[in-house]
Amino acid sequence: MDLFEAIRSTRSMRRLDPARDVSEGDVETMLDAATRAATGGNSQPVRWLVVRHPELKGRIGELYRQGAEVVLKRYEDEAANNPAAARMLKSSWHLADHMGEAPVLVIPCARGERGRVDSSVFPGVQNLMLAARAIGLGTTLTTIHRLHEDEIKELLGIPADVHTFAVIPVGYPLGRWGEARRRPVSQVTYRDRWGQASPVS
Amino acid sequence: MDLFEAIRSTRSMRRLDPARDVSEGDVETMLDAATRAATGGNSQPVRWLVVRHPELKGRIGELYRQGAEVVLKRYEDEAANNPAAARMLKSSWHLADHMGEAPVLVIPCARGERGRVDSSVFPGVQNLMLAARAIGLGTTLTTIHRLHEDEIKELLGIPADVHTFAVIPVGYPLGRWGEARRRPVSQVTYRDRWGQASPVS
Repeated sequence: MDLFEAIRSTRSMRRLDPARDVSEGDVETMLDAATRAATGGNSQPVRWLVVRHPELKGRIGELYRQGAEVVLKRYEDEAANNPAAARMLKSSWHLADHMGEAPVLVIPCARGERGRVDSSVFPGVQNLMLAARAIGLGTTLTTIHRLHEDEIKELLGIPADVHTFAVIPVGYPLGRWGEARRRPVSQVTYRDRWGQASPVS
Repeated sequence: MDLFEAIRSTRSMRRLDPARDVSEGDVETMLDAATRAATGGNSQPVRWLVVRHPELKGRIGELYRQGAEVVLKRYEDEAANNPAAARMLKSSWHLADHMGEAPVLVIPCARGERGRVDSSVFPGVQNLMLAARAIGLGTTLTTIHRLHEDEIKELLGIPADVHTFAVIPVGYPLGRWGEARRRPVSQVTYRDRWGQASPVS
């Protein structure tokens, strides 16, 4: 797949087919892409925890659902007045209800200071999601699990000094691919100085 | 360009041609790619500050160079015994000495809690770097500027509650494209539980 087609059509795919498994070869393709991203000093701090075990996924799903009860409430007011936000909220609830049924959950983990090591984690996460898209697999970058991070770390035997940065469900999407709605570049770009639409002359 | 070729060959390009400018169209292509990445609740918090003004770039380069004096020291011991680390250190010094001469510096900025909003910043940064690669432009994801972040924010008029996440120099590379050295997937992947090479049976 062409890079720009992948970039344009990689969007959160929150409805996944629980009955269609993801091959080990496809997981390898995604992880290989993930590991190619740059990391600070080429330190490669991320460990990619791939969870397929039904009971572990189920428990992670329960904890995720509890987090969603807290986080998704924040979007209810906006959803009441904004059809796009309402659709996102509905699909977010679908994911919260079915997270544990995703064929694969990928959890990027790393030691290091939060807010610092992140720059060595999320570029690889994006590579992973783009690679998944190119082979027909849907993903969503979610961080709601952090409300129950300690319980998830205990469940998976993750050491206390290791952070978990996301839970990424992977599977064949039930929805259709398409471009997500984003603000135009001109609305999110400044030139030379904060707030300036044009360069300093 | 094929997605997987872009992923494999996007590496830090620290030697850039200061004499060859980057077109506005190419900047737009990179920023369009950057804005396509998912963000928490589709909040799209990043403002992409594009700096071309020579004096501003020069001052950022000076501050970056001062940060490099501190950060790059950490790699000297490793470089003494490891040729790959020595090459990286040498090219990192080149970048530190020439940051202010890059045709374009892109600084992703966002409000929000550090360590939380990062997951809405760096996926877009990776998109930007992949898009640059596909159109022949080199980039490096650097965070060394954070040692002098307050001064850079003052220089560019960035409000106190806005963070700067990276300084990304963009230009035509003087070096050659190629695959960076990364650890194999098997060495950075766990199955079902931390530390396990194989799934729970």
